[in-house]
Amino acid sequence: MVLKSFVEVHPDSHFPIQNLPYGVFKAEPGSEPRPGVAIGDYVLDLAVVASAGLFDGPNLKNSDCFNQPNLNKFLGLGRPAWKEARSTLQKLLSADEPILRDNSSLRQRALLPMGKVQMLLPIAIGDYTDFFASKHHAKNCGLIFRGPENPINPNWFHIPIAYHGRASSIVISGTDIIRPRGQGHPTGNALPYFGPSRKLDFELEMAAVVGPGNELGKPVDVNEAADHIFGLVLMNDWSARDIQAWEYVPLGPFLGKSFGTTISPWIVTLDALEPFASDAPEQNPPPLPYLAEKESKNYDISLQVSIVPAGQKDACIISRSNFTHLYWTITQQLAHHTINGCNLRPGDLLGTGTISGPEPDSYGCLLELTWNGQKPLSLGGTTRTFLEDGDEVFFTGCCKGDGYNVGFGRCSGKILPSPP
Amino acid sequence: MVLKSFVEVHPDSHFPIQNLPYGVFKAEPGSEPRPGVAIGDYVLDLAVVASAGLFDGPNLKNSDCFNQPNLNKFLGLGRPAWKEARSTLQKLLSADEPILRDNSSLRQRALLPMGKVQMLLPIAIGDYTDFFASKHHAKNCGLIFRGPENPINPNWFHIPIAYHGRASSIVISGTDIIRPRGQGHPTGNALPYFGPSRKLDFELEMAAVVGPGNELGKPVDVNEAADHIFGLVLMNDWSARDIQAWEYVPLGPFLGKSFGTTISPWIVTLDALEPFASDAPEQNPPPLPYLAEKESKNYDISLQVSIVPAGQKDACIISRSNFTHLYWTITQQLAHHTINGCNLRPGDLLGTGTISGPEPDSYGCLLELTWNGQKPLSLGGTTRTFLEDGDEVFFTGCCKGDGYNVGFGRCSGKILPSPP
Repeated sequence: MVLKSFVEVHPDSHFPIQNLPYGVFKAEPGSEPRPGVAIGDYVLDLAVVASAGLFDGPNLKNSDCFNQPNLNKFLGLGRPAWKEARSTLQKLLSADEPILRDNSSLRQRALLPMGKVQMLLPIAIGDYTDFFASKHHAKNCGLIFRGPENPINPNWFHIPIAYHGRASSIVISGTDIIRPRGQGHPTGNALPYFGPSRKLDFELEMAAVVGPGNELGKPVDVNEAADHIFGLVLMNDWSARDIQAWEYVPLGPFLGKSFGTTISPWIVTLDALEPFASDAPEQNPPPLPYLAEKESKNYDISLQVSIVPAGQKDACIISRSNFTHLYWTITQQLAHHTINGCNLRPGDLLGTGTISGPEPDSYGCLLELTWNGQKPLSLGGTTRTFLEDGDEVFFTGCCKGDGYNVGFGRCSGKILPSPP
Repeated sequence: MVLKSFVEVHPDSHFPIQNLPYGVFKAEPGSEPRPGVAIGDYVLDLAVVASAGLFDGPNLKNSDCFNQPNLNKFLGLGRPAWKEARSTLQKLLSADEPILRDNSSLRQRALLPMGKVQMLLPIAIGDYTDFFASKHHAKNCGLIFRGPENPINPNWFHIPIAYHGRASSIVISGTDIIRPRGQGHPTGNALPYFGPSRKLDFELEMAAVVGPGNELGKPVDVNEAADHIFGLVLMNDWSARDIQAWEYVPLGPFLGKSFGTTISPWIVTLDALEPFASDAPEQNPPPLPYLAEKESKNYDISLQVSIVPAGQKDACIISRSNFTHLYWTITQQLAHHTINGCNLRPGDLLGTGTISGPEPDSYGCLLELTWNGQKPLSLGGTTRTFLEDGDEVFFTGCCKGDGYNVGFGRCSGKILPSPP
């Protein structure tokens, strides 16, 4: 029988008792940020649950990890504490558990309508890294920029390629994105131009949120890497393709990416995703021993991108992809990141890179969907090559269980014009 | 007449009353980190000065910025507070000011022998960015990796090229550096190898420490950029050239850099460096308007690299360079960084990139000094192409004034072997 909560949860909801993703919210504009868990259309206030003494397991009984403005302390406690919190909360919220269900005063303080709270960044992000782990995306970028001979650089098949991203400009879903200004370069020997980006794009990504870190100089074994990952969020790595194309040789993307990166507010735990695990694709050539996993997992997370074009009301779906399209797993990404001794810290973010599938309607960015602007997309009676001011982009992600979903909610942002 | 402090300062010292650089120290292993200023062979404890009520100017009188474990809060206050602190401290330490000089109990609490304290990272670094601002370095790298036709990529003359670096692995001078392991690639179609880096290098750099930041979406004008820079430190951006060469296409340096970056403990303020300002080199082609400065400054800072080879005692000087060899100024770097709306925060670090001069003995890394290992360096009766385990690398930087120095002390690190 499917586990049920006493809080009524619509069958289409992303947040049944099987999910219980973690976020940080403000109950009112002036109040302190605090951690919460999503259940149906409500947020369960974990500070209230903690002060009522309901976290009574050995890891959490005496911890102040839920009296914090972010989840970093809880993340640093590791999987035993996460499992304890999950089982405590599943019990507390279950239909046949009276403690919270029958205590109307506690219930009123602990369960807040989701529509009335403000969601904030759930973590203080020390470092943000972005990988390049979808083969379809790597291939399409190569075809567009370098042509059909060797579209994928040889190192890609041996290394989960990545770059360091900008942590300061990561924002929570719903934050407007200001079109960046910068240099672009038309072609040949022409001089560069300066102005608002002419090729503003989204990138459909997910990101792993790091739990316990590692000491500088002490790599994480690939078979233990999952214990360092708390969960996943949706991520939009907004990209200015003209700025990126002109600046990226030889040191990689910089201002073409650092003007804004949006994440969804709810971190879905690996424990909640476990029922949706699937085998990762076979890797050929086989990875070097430090990247060879005993068990190599992806998760069956359906991803969808829609746009509400400027001045319109309705969203048009423009891409459907899936997390299973990743070639390099998130555990390989994490192990590779630390193999040189680099230290990770709780709350660090590891983006997957754009998750494109094999079919044109599963590509994860406009660069691919419109083939660098050559094939405009039709949507809502208009067309797009790249994003226009006023366009709003929505990502959703969801795992379909038997009678329930484990979903990520959404990750959205609207483009505002450049400053004059 | 030259300003003098009542604390005796040797004429060769880097830290006379004209300098007063800021750092963070622990008086004893168990004590709390707190901010201090270097004066001769002493550290002036700013928490003691503050609690004695000696910061009596309008910006600092009621501030707790010196009762903090790092300088970030002080940095965020901006130039008026920095100028006030400098004039308060220059007065307090001057030979003819009795308040501290003649109060032996206060003096004993406030002035600690530098040799007895432990220096820590002076700032909590949110984001670290590394530029590529020396033309000689860019040219040499191009000649080594791409050959004599167009050694410098065309974008370099229009953009202060940079990449996002890893903040978590920045360490304080004196911290050992563990040789990273990773993938390298011999040549052609060979398979990559894995193991301890075979081409471990230093990079002679300096880094600007950001003061007040900017809001996301609000670029900093190049002519106001200096107000966002508190000061400079020495920086060694340790690099594994074999890892870097194999991984960096197309997303830039990643694990070849992120295993460790060392900074010197004392931040020398722009106010202390002002007497050593010089005109920056003429830029041709002229920069785009957003990078065109009314006044374009470098600083005459002599830089020196020496190595104590493994098993030896004496240091051999292997390079002499100067901060004036930068083509792109630190204010241009900062303005460029924000032109897309990217937000900076107090304590962010902007590295200059390797500072190489025009002559072979002024190159700032072994890649250039040994021309990628082709011309071994002789030192102390032995030779080096790249760094060996046990080698210790020292940077110093100093401005020569009339009868005094404004110096940076040193930035050092010793190579330890890879884990087995």
